[in-house]
Amino acid sequence: MRGTTVRDIWKAGGNAVSGWLQTPDILAAETIASLGFDAVCVDLQHGTIDMQAAVGLFQAISTSNATPLARPTACEPAQIMKLLDAGAFGIICPMVNTGEESERLVAACHYAPRGNRSFGPVRAAVYAGSEYMAKANDTIFSLAMIETRQALDNIDDIVSVKGLTGLYLGLSDLSISLGYPPAQDSSHGEILEAVQLVLRKCAEHKLIPGIACPSGEVARKRMQEGFRLVTAGPQMAWLTNAARQALAAARG
Amino acid sequence: MRGTTVRDIWKAGGNAVSGWLQTPDILAAETIASLGFDAVCVDLQHGTIDMQAAVGLFQAISTSNATPLARPTACEPAQIMKLLDAGAFGIICPMVNTGEESERLVAACHYAPRGNRSFGPVRAAVYAGSEYMAKANDTIFSLAMIETRQALDNIDDIVSVKGLTGLYLGLSDLSISLGYPPAQDSSHGEILEAVQLVLRKCAEHKLIPGIACPSGEVARKRMQEGFRLVTAGPQMAWLTNAARQALAAARG
Amino acid sequence: MRGTTVRDIWKAGGNAVSGWLQTPDILAAETIASLGFDAVCVDLQHGTIDMQAAVGLFQAISTSNATPLARPTACEPAQIMKLLDAGAFGIICPMVNTGEESERLVAACHYAPRGNRSFGPVRAAVYAGSEYMAKANDTIFSLAMIETRQALDNIDDIVSVKGLTGLYLGLSDLSISLGYPPAQDSSHGEILEAVQLVLRKCAEHKLIPGIACPSGEVARKRMQEGFRLVTAGPQMAWLTNAARQALAAARG
Amino acid sequence: MRGTTVRDIWKAGGNAVSGWLQTPDILAAETIASLGFDAVCVDLQHGTIDMQAAVGLFQAISTSNATPLARPTACEPAQIMKLLDAGAFGIICPMVNTGEESERLVAACHYAPRGNRSFGPVRAAVYAGSEYMAKANDTIFSLAMIETRQALDNIDDIVSVKGLTGLYLGLSDLSISLGYPPAQDSSHGEILEAVQLVLRKCAEHKLIPGIACPSGEVARKRMQEGFRLVTAGPQMAWLTNAARQALAAARG
Amino acid sequence: MRGTTVRDIWKAGGNAVSGWLQTPDILAAETIASLGFDAVCVDLQHGTIDMQAAVGLFQAISTSNATPLARPTACEPAQIMKLLDAGAFGIICPMVNTGEESERLVAACHYAPRGNRSFGPVRAAVYAGSEYMAKANDTIFSLAMIETRQALDNIDDIVSVKGLTGLYLGLSDLSISLGYPPAQDSSHGEILEAVQLVLRKCAEHKLIPGIACPSGEVARKRMQEGFRLVTAGPQMAWLTNAARQALAAARG
Amino acid sequence: MRGTTVRDIWKAGGNAVSGWLQTPDILAAETIASLGFDAVCVDLQHGTIDMQAAVGLFQAISTSNATPLARPTACEPAQIMKLLDAGAFGIICPMVNTGEESERLVAACHYAPRGNRSFGPVRAAVYAGSEYMAKANDTIFSLAMIETRQALDNIDDIVSVKGLTGLYLGLSDLSISLGYPPAQDSSHGEILEAVQLVLRKCAEHKLIPGIACPSGEVARKRMQEGFRLVTAGPQMAWLTNAARQALAAARG
Repeated sequence: MRGTTVRDIWKAGGNAVSGWLQTPDILAAETIASLGFDAVCVDLQHGTIDMQAAVGLFQAISTSNATPLARPTACEPAQIMKLLDAGAFGIICPMVNTGEESERLVAACHYAPRGNRSFGPVRAAVYAGSEYMAKANDTIFSLAMIETRQALDNIDDIVSVKGLTGLYLGLSDLSISLGYPPAQDSSHGEILEAVQLVLRKCAEHKLIPGIACPSGEVARKRMQEGFRLVTAGPQMAWLTNAARQALAAARG
Repeated sequence: MRGTTVRDIWKAGGNAVSGWLQTPDILAAETIASLGFDAVCVDLQHGTIDMQAAVGLFQAISTSNATPLARPTACEPAQIMKLLDAGAFGIICPMVNTGEESERLVAACHYAPRGNRSFGPVRAAVYAGSEYMAKANDTIFSLAMIETRQALDNIDDIVSVKGLTGLYLGLSDLSISLGYPPAQDSSHGEILEAVQLVLRKCAEHKLIPGIACPSGEVARKRMQEGFRLVTAGPQMAWLTNAARQALAAARG
Repeated sequence: MRGTTVRDIWKAGGNAVSGWLQTPDILAAETIASLGFDAVCVDLQHGTIDMQAAVGLFQAISTSNATPLARPTACEPAQIMKLLDAGAFGIICPMVNTGEESERLVAACHYAPRGNRSFGPVRAAVYAGSEYMAKANDTIFSLAMIETRQALDNIDDIVSVKGLTGLYLGLSDLSISLGYPPAQDSSHGEILEAVQLVLRKCAEHKLIPGIACPSGEVARKRMQEGFRLVTAGPQMAWLTNAARQALAAARG
Repeated sequence: MRGTTVRDIWKAGGNAVSGWLQTPDILAAETIASLGFDAVCVDLQHGTIDMQAAVGLFQAISTSNATPLARPTACEPAQIMKLLDAGAFGIICPMVNTGEESERLVAACHYAPRGNRSFGPVRAAVYAGSEYMAKANDTIFSLAMIETRQALDNIDDIVSVKGLTGLYLGLSDLSISLGYPPAQDSSHGEILEAVQLVLRKCAEHKLIPGIACPSGEVARKRMQEGFRLVTAGPQMAWLTNAARQALAAARG
Repeated sequence: MRGTTVRDIWKAGGNAVSGWLQTPDILAAETIASLGFDAVCVDLQHGTIDMQAAVGLFQAISTSNATPLARPTACEPAQIMKLLDAGAFGIICPMVNTGEESERLVAACHYAPRGNRSFGPVRAAVYAGSEYMAKANDTIFSLAMIETRQALDNIDDIVSVKGLTGLYLGLSDLSISLGYPPAQDSSHGEILEAVQLVLRKCAEHKLIPGIACPSGEVARKRMQEGFRLVTAGPQMAWLTNAARQALAAARG
Repeated sequence: MRGTTVRDIWKAGGNAVSGWLQTPDILAAETIASLGFDAVCVDLQHGTIDMQAAVGLFQAISTSNATPLARPTACEPAQIMKLLDAGAFGIICPMVNTGEESERLVAACHYAPRGNRSFGPVRAAVYAGSEYMAKANDTIFSLAMIETRQALDNIDDIVSVKGLTGLYLGLSDLSISLGYPPAQDSSHGEILEAVQLVLRKCAEHKLIPGIACPSGEVARKRMQEGFRLVTAGPQMAWLTNAARQALAAARG
């Protein structure tokens, strides 16, 4: 079955590096996917991307071996299920602050009996082939974003939900929530502790720890710390930095 | 009237640096425009961009002071006129190989008596305001791309067309046409001569010399040579290089 | 008023056959609508269709006499109201599992005093004409999908909501919920009982029983059983089967 | 920082007049914005506009000085946050019927500590510039729509939420809720009382009173009554009336 | 067969009034079509409309009895044929300046033996029904725009093309071509003579005279002069004037 | 290099079966491509598909091993080059009626020295990888459609163009051109002779003979006759027939 690159890497003990899409640009998506990322994530939360555009982006990603991921706008089951029908093989769910929200996420990612996902994988079954229904529950993965003080407080409830695949740290939002400016590579003590807490809880519960990173360099450092799914920076940061440098070089 | 940034720079004796859009991504367009480029060009020839998407890209550019430019798919008057109606203030026309094509370009960019542009600036007049009809003929500029051996042979006919604003060198295609691999910074003798020919013909006819560049560094060098409209690299090169570097950094 | 084909059929004691759209393809929609279906349903739940695309699909349907229907992604009042504003004349609401959800559906489909629909039928009034506001509450219909064990358990609460038009069986999801593989023509005893339960409850409460079918043949059988709104198979099944057969015939 | 036109008018004691978009037509949006409105609102609730189209509309508005506003489909935090990320500088939130909903609205419009807005202003920071993060909490404004009997009953709870910018009367829905036909210029006693109630509560709590109006004439009257943000009629009413008159004039 | 409203009016000796679309806004299109225009024209030349958007606009028009018309960007057979395949029942062709161009237009609008239209009415046959192939040659109509001095000079060649349905005056462009500012209601002697010339030539050759008008009032006057297809003003003029008036009324 | 499926089949002496897309539906495209067709053709001539939509369709096709093909609206070099840049690996060019048009087609499909294709494979190089520039001239194939009496008359000129890959019979248009009703499986003597002529000329010049077919059955027959690229029916015929049958089955 296609789409299992990230799962295969994890099974083999490795770490996965993801691209991160923020616009409905299907050529950008295909180009990024073609570079060799293990996964590419479609960000519906902060990106200017709707569900229907996501379908085209998933197709663009599916021309490569990268596993298609999605971040929904919120922990909304109907939205998550529609992303899965469209071919997302992993969900990075923002703002999972309670055990109840963790359960809602996991339920949306599994057909009964584990969950309550509705049946109709209109594109997913085209992409994955005829095995989809049989293997979906064991293949689709779900990562709960830890990005508020409330989530830190409720982390034991969150990780206790059976079927959750891992946690995904969002340090920008966590920084704001803890009273700091938004940053993905902060060295404030509370932030460093949160990082360790997430790694420790994942180790205890055999969960995958993931984290959003502003650049490839930070992504590398995070993998050395123990994170197993990292983002090597988002699309618009890549484009903006490169265009700004080109303009500066031209101006001299 | 808005849109005159490039014209104003040229009047003041300066050189203009342009961004170069290759996809219908309106957020990428607005972001690039916001960085301080003097112009941003919508490439309908090799980009995955149609006319209707170009309208959105022109709007994205119009949130900044950058002059909106367009490269049509070919020297087709109806297409050029529609781009002007949509708000392009400069046309970089590919494959102008003869004096007749140069005349066709210039005619399409001017209302009578100079040309045969059809009236209906449905967006251009919104963008530029009520002066548009009075000032369009003196504001819109047209650059004929020199990118084949045939164009070099016919350069005197091409530059003799009254109302043409300048020439724009396309070294990738010119290289292929002359028997070399495509490259925008070639040092083959024939290519170097072509560069000098274009600069010389522009100087003789008081035309603006422009050139497509693969990067900001090359753009800077070209301005030092005398080019007055340069591209600091295209959108997908920026994105691809940055994403590739990020992935490499993550992998270590 | 346009859009009443299904209501008229029901009034005359007949049964209605619906087409079922799963993609934003407006030509496919118009073509299907032109074939003589009594209704055509836009599936936002499992189809790759967003709200804005639904508007174009409703227009495509509105070139015919078929009643435009929609299935929202979930029992979300704001989404249902927007579909009605866009011209849906019937809502097939997924996953109505409780009386509270049934009430939420019905309230969203009626202006006060019966419901809480917000006023602004920006396309619906264009399609239906000036009578829309006066007749909407009596014309728009709402069908609650019964597709989980929980819904079976709560069926009395669901059907007791005043203003609900009918029930709509989703046997694929119901099968999964009851522990069977997804199928729309299952003969498991529990499934057969569920079918009879829905028909009986509808008869008792003068509700319309409807059901999703995988093909025209099954649709015919379901009408013989007493169902009064049936789907004669979804768009992608039609296309996929036909294309697969054509390829097989070519290969011999 | 761009986008502060309406805030600046209010600070100077003036009233703001807004345009109102109901379709994804980016040329219509830019044209309306170019006419001198102080604000232009993108209506996702009753308009045929999705989130992704809203991005293009915000860009079209951003070619002018008009402040970009949005009405979400409902009081849904994730949707409101995404509109803010896309560049909305004011939210007109429909159906705020309780203090809890007012709090949810205000929280979505502010980063911590006041609210729980998630960080990722992917377009807003391009539009507004580098000051965005520092100034967003004091610049973005939120207006709670009062349009049901329930909202009138709970108005004290609604206005007590710290950080709310104002109230926005929706008389069509309020009329229906109170048992009258939908109208934005009703003279029923209950409606007139509701208007006075909203003005009085705003005065008491130093909130901005706003109101939807069917035409420029009504908008003028409402400003004379004390409303400080008014809509001079929606897009489709303008177009429909003008087209109808033109046809009548042609027919004689 | 649907789509014959304008043909039927002409047969009965009447005059047809057309709406005129300039943007891809399908709701605006359906709304305008619903008002009772005899025809609605999709303007690809000066409007921000591409071929694919035209398909949606034709569907929107096809919800009414208005005959769908199109103005291509130029006298390009492939484009004209694609518009016909998409369901245009009349072509208003810009810049027909010679007999050769008139012949090219007419040939594109007819299947052999009269013309060279390629077969594949993928949407037209859905809209019109099974009679389409048999009736298309006698139903589709073609109007050659007379809008340059060259066209006036060649008018005898233009009208001599067998199968041409009529002429369509474009006075804005004709004014520019003759040395005047663009205007659709000019009283310059040369313009008045051109109007009479077109009417006279149409009478002599039993052709339909049509004309673009800026408003309903002018359209009425033109019908009194003898024009049988008139435009009661374009979409953006309607919207802009109405929005401008509303803002002025609000400001007082 | 990806995209060579059809070339590989031909090299091995086999015949290729193609799907045929007529709408911008990317899910339909991916689904059809997934069924095992050797190629899938995007029809811009009679389909409701523009260039930009074609990019998404090429991506959808590129999730499979099917070779992406395109039929442009006409023998227009700029359009053909843009389709190649977007990732088409074969061009089926309509209405090639003369040797000059055949040469234009072949030139557009080759970089110099053989042709005049402009350099900028913005998506093609992503899809095909870094070998694209080196291999494009030998990989891209071009088929000239024979579909008029004029083409039959000029067939020797057409096939004599060096670099042309093959001929592609369009029997619907050829039938009309010869005075018969449009049909793809006609047994009129002139049609049968034309079929034999195409096969013979291809054999003589070592060209690939291809042909449009209305169904898989006819496609099979055509391969038995010697055709090496066949279409097993177009998308809308598949969908329409299947939907019509389903409705008939439901109605009984």
